[in-house]
Amino acid sequence: MKKNLFITFEGGEGSGKTTHSLLLKKYLEKRGYEVLLTREPGGTILAEAVRRILLNPDSNIVPLSELFLYEAARAQHVEEFVFPALNAGKAVICDRFTDATVAYQGYGRKLNLQLIDSLNSTTSFGLTPVLTIYLDILPSEGLSRAKRAKKLNRKIYSDKIERESLQFHESVREGYLSQAEKYPERIKVVKTQETVEKTEVCIREIIDLVL
Amino acid sequence: MKKNLFITFEGGEGSGKTTHSLLLKKYLEKRGYEVLLTREPGGTILAEAVRRILLNPDSNIVPLSELFLYEAARAQHVEEFVFPALNAGKAVICDRFTDATVAYQGYGRKLNLQLIDSLNSTTSFGLTPVLTIYLDILPSEGLSRAKRAKKLNRKIYSDKIERESLQFHESVREGYLSQAEKYPERIKVVKTQETVEKTEVCIREIIDLVL
Repeated sequence: MKKNLFITFEGGEGSGKTTHSLLLKKYLEKRGYEVLLTREPGGTILAEAVRRILLNPDSNIVPLSELFLYEAARAQHVEEFVFPALNAGKAVICDRFTDATVAYQGYGRKLNLQLIDSLNSTTSFGLTPVLTIYLDILPSEGLSRAKRAKKLNRKIYSDKIERESLQFHESVREGYLSQAEKYPERIKVVKTQETVEKTEVCIREIIDLVL
Repeated sequence: MKKNLFITFEGGEGSGKTTHSLLLKKYLEKRGYEVLLTREPGGTILAEAVRRILLNPDSNIVPLSELFLYEAARAQHVEEFVFPALNAGKAVICDRFTDATVAYQGYGRKLNLQLIDSLNSTTSFGLTPVLTIYLDILPSEGLSRAKRAKKLNRKIYSDKIERESLQFHESVREGYLSQAEKYPERIKVVKTQETVEKTEVCIREIIDLVL
């Protein structure tokens, strides 16, 4: 029963994914799980290269190339980190996965959704989370939160995506909500509450049902 | 009639693509064409990053990620260089294109050929060469040629691919020949001759039919 627990966190900027995935890791460890906490594009050498190229303003990456770079990073991350951890009986918590590609590249960049579904299925080697927590926050609020967090010197990577228009972030949210509607069994929508603690309570209720 | 002349060169290591694409450029210029001579993954910032990551032995890129990186680079290269040149009425000669992905990632790395066809069509935005010259050479001979060329300080990039087994290069050749059989109208097989001049004559005969 403790095998193949693959859980993903999804959400826009400032939704608190990083905080809550760390809290969930501690919670699962208390329950006796060995846990790998990881994030896309992942801690591989390829992921670092992909981050650098996407953040380089001179590279002028076209949307289709951006999609293929994230997909390349996913295949490497799944093979190098996720599968070995799952096969070793660990629980894996991943900060962003296939739903993020639908939300950001599909709804945000307006790339073809069927293409994205098909690429997602290829580069995840068919791996699907048993549970996805989507942390829902209004983009305007999330972006202010993200900016405050950045002042505390965190989340340097999100610079480029934060500079996108509010409209972009609203499309991303629409993408996430539409995924949640499409896969209600897998994706649970958690509205972020006033405090971290209150949000955590909502997440634990869902997690306890899965465990 | 001088619009949309998109010609690709294909071939294994040491087949003389670089030499002959340069000779063709000069020939077309004499015939009044403005010519863009380019190569995959292309001279974009993304292409440089892709080359670096593929050459880094520590990155342990899995075959599927390798495929997606080449496809990402193609989309960027086509949008940034090839389309603008064709739209400006130039002839474009490209050293390696979609057939190389079939040969190297499909036949060489044994990735699914249908997947590759579908990705190729996506990242080339449906652009198909009017003519592809496949320079055919026995892998054993091509590799010795490539090594001699490298001693003259050229082709540093091909290091990693040259280190692949002879069997790999034979599969690549099989892939090219099977593509040529599948698309006989577009792909012309030119066996490399003893001298550059003799090979050039064979290529010009084909080119003159297209012009």
